[in-house]
Amino acid sequence: MYRTHDCGELRLGDVSREVTLAGWVQSIRKFGSISFIDLRDRYGITQLLIGEALNEYLTETPLGREFVIQATGIVSERSNKNLQIPTGEIEIKVSRFTILNKSATPPFTIQDDTDGGDDLRMKYRYLDLRRNEVKKNLELRYAVNRAARDYLHQQKFMDIETPFLIKSTPEGARDFVVPSRMNPGQFYALPQSPQTFKQLLMVSGYDRYYQVVKCFRDEDLRADRQPEFTQIDCEMSFIEQDDILRMFEGLIKFIFKQVKGIDYTESVERMSWEDAMWNYGNDKPDIRFDMKITNIKSPLKRNGALEAEGQIIGHANFNVFDQAETILAISIPAAAAWTRKQFDAWTDWVKRPQIGMQGLVYIRYNEDGTIKSSVDKFYNEERLAAIAGFCEAKKGDAILILAGREEKTRKAISELRLEMGEQMGLRNKDEFKLLWVLDFPLFEYSEEDNRWVARHHPFTAPKPDQIAVMINNDPAIRRAEQYLEHPYAGIKANAYDMVLNGNEIGGGSIRIYQRELQEKMFDALGMTREEANHKFGFLLGAFEYGAPPHGGIAFGFDRLCAILGGSESIRDFIAFPKNNSGRDVMLDAPSTIDDKQLNELSIEIKA
Amino acid sequence: MYRTHDCGELRLGDVSREVTLAGWVQSIRKFGSISFIDLRDRYGITQLLIGEALNEYLTETPLGREFVIQATGIVSERSNKNLQIPTGEIEIKVSRFTILNKSATPPFTIQDDTDGGDDLRMKYRYLDLRRNEVKKNLELRYAVNRAARDYLHQQKFMDIETPFLIKSTPEGARDFVVPSRMNPGQFYALPQSPQTFKQLLMVSGYDRYYQVVKCFRDEDLRADRQPEFTQIDCEMSFIEQDDILRMFEGLIKFIFKQVKGIDYTESVERMSWEDAMWNYGNDKPDIRFDMKITNIKSPLKRNGALEAEGQIIGHANFNVFDQAETILAISIPAAAAWTRKQFDAWTDWVKRPQIGMQGLVYIRYNEDGTIKSSVDKFYNEERLAAIAGFCEAKKGDAILILAGREEKTRKAISELRLEMGEQMGLRNKDEFKLLWVLDFPLFEYSEEDNRWVARHHPFTAPKPDQIAVMINNDPAIRRAEQYLEHPYAGIKANAYDMVLNGNEIGGGSIRIYQRELQEKMFDALGMTREEANHKFGFLLGAFEYGAPPHGGIAFGFDRLCAILGGSESIRDFIAFPKNNSGRDVMLDAPSTIDDKQLNELSIEIKA
Repeated sequence: MYRTHDCGELRLGDVSREVTLAGWVQSIRKFGSISFIDLRDRYGITQLLIGEALNEYLTETPLGREFVIQATGIVSERSNKNLQIPTGEIEIKVSRFTILNKSATPPFTIQDDTDGGDDLRMKYRYLDLRRNEVKKNLELRYAVNRAARDYLHQQKFMDIETPFLIKSTPEGARDFVVPSRMNPGQFYALPQSPQTFKQLLMVSGYDRYYQVVKCFRDEDLRADRQPEFTQIDCEMSFIEQDDILRMFEGLIKFIFKQVKGIDYTESVERMSWEDAMWNYGNDKPDIRFDMKITNIKSPLKRNGALEAEGQIIGHANFNVFDQAETILAISIPAAAAWTRKQFDAWTDWVKRPQIGMQGLVYIRYNEDGTIKSSVDKFYNEERLAAIAGFCEAKKGDAILILAGREEKTRKAISELRLEMGEQMGLRNKDEFKLLWVLDFPLFEYSEEDNRWVARHHPFTAPKPDQIAVMINNDPAIRRAEQYLEHPYAGIKANAYDMVLNGNEIGGGSIRIYQRELQEKMFDALGMTREEANHKFGFLLGAFEYGAPPHGGIAFGFDRLCAILGGSESIRDFIAFPKNNSGRDVMLDAPSTIDDKQLNELSIEIKA
Repeated sequence: MYRTHDCGELRLGDVSREVTLAGWVQSIRKFGSISFIDLRDRYGITQLLIGEALNEYLTETPLGREFVIQATGIVSERSNKNLQIPTGEIEIKVSRFTILNKSATPPFTIQDDTDGGDDLRMKYRYLDLRRNEVKKNLELRYAVNRAARDYLHQQKFMDIETPFLIKSTPEGARDFVVPSRMNPGQFYALPQSPQTFKQLLMVSGYDRYYQVVKCFRDEDLRADRQPEFTQIDCEMSFIEQDDILRMFEGLIKFIFKQVKGIDYTESVERMSWEDAMWNYGNDKPDIRFDMKITNIKSPLKRNGALEAEGQIIGHANFNVFDQAETILAISIPAAAAWTRKQFDAWTDWVKRPQIGMQGLVYIRYNEDGTIKSSVDKFYNEERLAAIAGFCEAKKGDAILILAGREEKTRKAISELRLEMGEQMGLRNKDEFKLLWVLDFPLFEYSEEDNRWVARHHPFTAPKPDQIAVMINNDPAIRRAEQYLEHPYAGIKANAYDMVLNGNEIGGGSIRIYQRELQEKMFDALGMTREEANHKFGFLLGAFEYGAPPHGGIAFGFDRLCAILGGSESIRDFIAFPKNNSGRDVMLDAPSTIDDKQLNELSIEIKA
């Protein structure tokens, strides 16, 4: 050992002990014939006092920042205490020290407020990892990992490793593939998730499985996606949806307690996918704040209920509203008092290309009961009052209204709501609100192929009472424009997402476990029986030998850590992340390989 | 939940409770108007009693083995108790049951003594995984995983994930590579180990790192190798070799205690590589039994000590011995009494092609003190006595002698020793003997390239007092035939292997942490500076910014589990292993991929 103690543990109680520390020079301050060194390691910072005798030596062989040194001396009480740090009441009166390794001047400062830009810090990631902020992130990541494992272990889950070199069965995202040298012309694929393996483990009777496991998706990288990412992957047998929900909200609550010291005792809200879309405009609502959305002219039927269609805003000769596919409104508390400038600013905000709306209509429901709007020309006060009432606006609120194409408008108002919450300080990153979103549609319609695609994945089971609907109907869509009339359009899945502060942190489903239903699903997705057998024959086979009812969930581990750490970026919580082009700029990977390697693999690069 | 209890937990104390169980039908026995079903799940087997009323239903809808059923009934005391199993005193008087899923007749019996051959069980791995023996292996694997994590956590190690899509830097084994779609013509590589990343983490100050991590090597598979395998990978800073040895023998002892209930309190023996080679003929001796090897004519110089060279066996006109490069002897306790037939059998054994020796000489040192041998023509009793004395044989022993080329003979006698130990019952699989092998040579000589290769890997440090030898000498080998005279030939590494019962379960080293020394190492391996920078520039760069002294170790997790489970085969301890051609026969992977995928990746298959 190069040290007797670490740089974070010495206290007043250690005064007079001789100790040896080792670490990095955080800073040096010379005062005439003595010097102070802040020595840093993983555990903290301890002040070294270099007295007159050694100080001369220091002049001859000067130390720089980030030098690695070992120092021996007596722990002493400091005259000038620093109560900001745990070791701040003591210092080491150094009797001897050794330079273990020198350091060139780092390309950026190793401090909380670093002067290094993103690219520089990615290239020298090993230096960026020294910064306290990054270290705290990785420590949090480890704590979450540990807590998850502890909980799952207590609940009798078993960590079982599944293979990384598997078979390519692209369905959804693209696979990364690995040429096989021993089987020329053939490829392994890297798993997008251990989905089929964990299901096989259920068929094998393992009952409760988990893994903290790397997964791979060769997607065009949007901001904050990584080609390799980590999942907490779980599966259970002999359970129903409610068992899963309770088990895994338990997991997240346990993590809150262990990692953040938060007692999350309230029950986790559950919301149907329809309600989420209807009230918040998306399937992962941030419920830390209210401000629900109201649809005041909907092409969607909501439980066949909205009688208001057209009546609220129709017959006013306001073309924008008359021609819009959908019109969505949101009441903003205390916004009636906004200036014209403020409304204009929000109008500009929704007109930015990222949002892409044509404009914004607003209604002021003033404290004095009067109502004014930007469309007074078309709507009199009575009609405005009706709209305000329908939107459940209160005196003092303003109502913002967006109109246009269904999907775009929904997205826009959802973004508007979030930004509004942000600006109003309603999205406190130290407040955590969990939510289950349930009852997703089983299928989505693919216009391109005029067929159904699985919303979650092809192994998700329909609601039990809709299995018959699925089995007894031909999935083929005869008339594309009427796909919504097809019985499959209404089938809901036994699927669930866990949402934390507006982010999907996990998702899963009860699985199909009957061969007939699984085959029907593959039919629905347009797979021939041959193709289904080629890709998933092992799973269909397994279902013939006693598959139990089962289901599971996977949590996005990187994102969960980021949110718990109060950050939006998963990259900050990955030790060696890739950039947005999927490159590791530190390693300079990917890179070319030798012809010898290519030859051995029986492949060549296409010109 | 489909059950109130599992199939392993009900006892006499539960009698009269109504319970619901779910699981697989292990067996059905009909006795007239009643039936007994053994119901199996992950936790055990419970007997169900189907009374007269339900039995009729059972005749109409017959159950088969491996059907999945759910049964409700009252826990009752059995009249005919089975004390072999924990639930054997009770049974469930079933009041209703449901078939949750049917099962076809499995292709082999799901029992400890299965009738399924290897290939069949690999194809239906999900059924093989149901067998108790395989389940016990995976449970043991999980227990080892858990124990390792617990120990390392207590010792302040942090699990930090390192990337899987890295850069190809073949040096040693072949990399698996992954074509990058977004960077046409470029490839990622899958890591052979996280070696350079864990070193970077030390440079970053993380101090104590671990990971239970998949690694990949594209080697021609020998028996019991897998293209993907798992390591317990660890690294520490500010330590010396002795710190590592103590830390990690602690890890293995902790695993013994947690997983096997064994208090391994004795200290772990340490042996130099030279002693291992000299006394046991290999670098991973099984020290559960003694029977050391004696070199009675050595071309090797052992600490310049053996004066006996030639004297013991020379001047006897026995051509075989005179012409042999080396002659190795082993004393077998109580073997003087063997019959001629027994000696002949061992002679045949060493002549098998796997061993490939020409023959075997034996000397009987009889209980009465007389000495006879198969070479009495050449050696009189006095000379034989001298040999016996040199081999430290005792009365009643026999000495077996092999002669031939150095390496082959050493391997042969080492195999002979192990087989002898096996047959004499000295290799008890419930006895565990740990051993550190130390002081490996830093370099090996590559005849093919007339250069040095790293015995461990290029990041291993020489013994501190030999750094100067390395730095101050030109690594180039001028005269191939005299490579043993080169100063590099004698350099010992700060490297160590942990050996358990004759198997290497882990290996590591103190690392180089100075750029100059690392560059010298790359020089020695015949890398140009340019090549070194291209492949390992990030590491050389990192060494310029304050790299601490560090070192680590990696344990072969699959093998460790196999040995703890008393098996020779790692495949039995992997949930979804590949066969000896690297195929997953269950998935049928690797396999061909679409032209679309190939196009996207800008590669084509070579005809």
